Amino acid sequence: MGTDMSTSRKFGLAVAQMGPVHLQDDRASVVRRLIDMLRQAHARQARMVVFPELALTTFFPRYWMEKTEAEARFFEHAMPNPDVQPLFDEARRLGVGFYLGYAELTPEGRAFNTAIIVDDKGNIVGKYRKIHLPGHDDHKTEAPFQHLEKKFFEVGDLGFRVFDAMDVRMGMCLCNDRRWPETYRVMALQSAELVVLGYNTPSVNIHWNEPVHLRTTTHLISLQANAYQNGIWVAAAGKCGSEDGHHMIGSSVIVAPTGEIVARTSGEEDEVIVADIDLTLGENLRQHVFNFAKHRSPEHYRLIVERTGAGEPVA
Amino acid sequence: MGTDMSTSRKFGLAVAQMGPVHLQDDRASVVRRLIDMLRQAHARQARMVVFPELALTTFFPRYWMEKTEAEARFFEHAMPNPDVQPLFDEARRLGVGFYLGYAELTPEGRAFNTAIIVDDKGNIVGKYRKIHLPGHDDHKTEAPFQHLEKKFFEVGDLGFRVFDAMDVRMGMCLCNDRRWPETYRVMALQSAELVVLGYNTPSVNIHWNEPVHLRTTTHLISLQANAYQNGIWVAAAGKCGSEDGHHMIGSSVIVAPTGEIVARTSGEEDEVIVADIDLTLGENLRQHVFNFAKHRSPEHYRLIVERTGAGEPVA
Repeated sequence: MGTDMSTSRKFGLAVAQMGPVHLQDDRASVVRRLIDMLRQAHARQARMVVFPELALTTFFPRYWMEKTEAEARFFEHAMPNPDVQPLFDEARRLGVGFYLGYAELTPEGRAFNTAIIVDDKGNIVGKYRKIHLPGHDDHKTEAPFQHLEKKFFEVGDLGFRVFDAMDVRMGMCLCNDRRWPETYRVMALQSAELVVLGYNTPSVNIHWNEPVHLRTTTHLISLQANAYQNGIWVAAAGKCGSEDGHHMIGSSVIVAPTGEIVARTSGEEDEVIVADIDLTLGENLRQHVFNFAKHRSPEHYRLIVERTGAGEPVA
Repeated sequence: MGTDMSTSRKFGLAVAQMGPVHLQDDRASVVRRLIDMLRQAHARQARMVVFPELALTTFFPRYWMEKTEAEARFFEHAMPNPDVQPLFDEARRLGVGFYLGYAELTPEGRAFNTAIIVDDKGNIVGKYRKIHLPGHDDHKTEAPFQHLEKKFFEVGDLGFRVFDAMDVRMGMCLCNDRRWPETYRVMALQSAELVVLGYNTPSVNIHWNEPVHLRTTTHLISLQANAYQNGIWVAAAGKCGSEDGHHMIGSSVIVAPTGEIVARTSGEEDEVIVADIDLTLGENLRQHVFNFAKHRSPEHYRLIVERTGAGEPVA
């Protein structure tokens, strides 16, 4: 792909897409599926596996319920916990790290849509709480289903941090964050080399009559352009297929810093894709066209932090 | 494309791609080509035409020369000027607005890579001076050609403003700006509906051995993702083909707020593409998934303005 660096720095990376998790599926059965994919990834020489957002349960924000009911049924009160411990144990045994998304209830009772990075020793080395929560907090009785992330979760309070794990500087985010260029830029300004993320993306848009093919198009171009514009690798794992009749898109991918998709799932079930990614591939981009120090002009970007919503022209 | 708005707001928009302008081509011959394309666009009901960056001359930053020589040969000392006046006259006569890129030398002797928007009355209603200048200012004697924008031009001093012209709120930028998400975001935060731009993109990357197909891939995904992520229309006009043996990419496009390419040139010569764009198409995006006021979190974006270059992780 056009690197003329004399050395490459390879890293075996897997994305473990998940098929549906239905309401009646218990955590133990889901964790068995994750462990099975972890082993597949390890057999294909992956050193890290990216699992989806809210990987342990169905995508429950589609259902109207009280917050207390959601927290009792779908949130993790500790991580790891007895249900998830077998995944941590097998990952440590195999020496494979992972990214996992889950609903987090803190000891203080705060609720977040959370992801963690666990290294190849089984240690949680990074945590992220979702910032760009989509959807609404009211009951849309006319809609075919709900998207209640703004009801069940607080906006994340940890920012977009990056972490050194397994000799890779990685950042992470969750689902809707991938459509916001600020997400990737803040991590690239901390010299991220790889951004990992999980998602659950309904195939039907409840807000307007969006053609279904656009759900995949916009997912892919967002990942591709932001990988390229920051000179970073991006890996995205979806939970997809039809959960109790509610369909979500697949197309989990690994995207190179060139913007090219180097691996993509082909179905809507549990499916592992692996790429032996070269972490130096983005260096030419970061040294030339996207040499931030040489080319950025923050004095002209101030509106990005001075405004939240769109407003009138600046005179 | 999935709008359920009861009204649409149509605007005939043309992109006028240019084939090569060679060193020996004079301004008058170039302006005749622009006028010919302006008439084609008008005949196809366009109300505005987007011309390329540095449309009046060859892409001279590829040649090593003294700054004074470049300014004497390739810069405009007034706009309009006698060479360009016929384009302004014909545009006013037809009632068609346009965007035009040119090298600007101010009365004070400052040099910018500039673009203007001229409305359907022939008035210059907006000016932009390129902020993300690519390339270098030193003589790369080993390179097959130069990319001396950092030698010949100052960084633009006008910011990313938006302008109301012909009942459209439009922003503009130039070439390399299109690869920087900050460009579009600052204009979208001023409620831009359409961003127009011109470019000259060499097919060969002088910095590293980049596969040529990526030059087009990264051009297109940047336009598509940034159109989508801001819910805006984007129109991009290239000068392309082989200028005195130096080849540049074509693929001038009009991109919808959905991220979809709705018109694209097919060759590398002068070529007009037209789309009757619906300016309301982005409203669903701006009201829901990209409702900035509801979903953005500027408190987590501060690094975008606090850092220029990439640095260490924030603790």
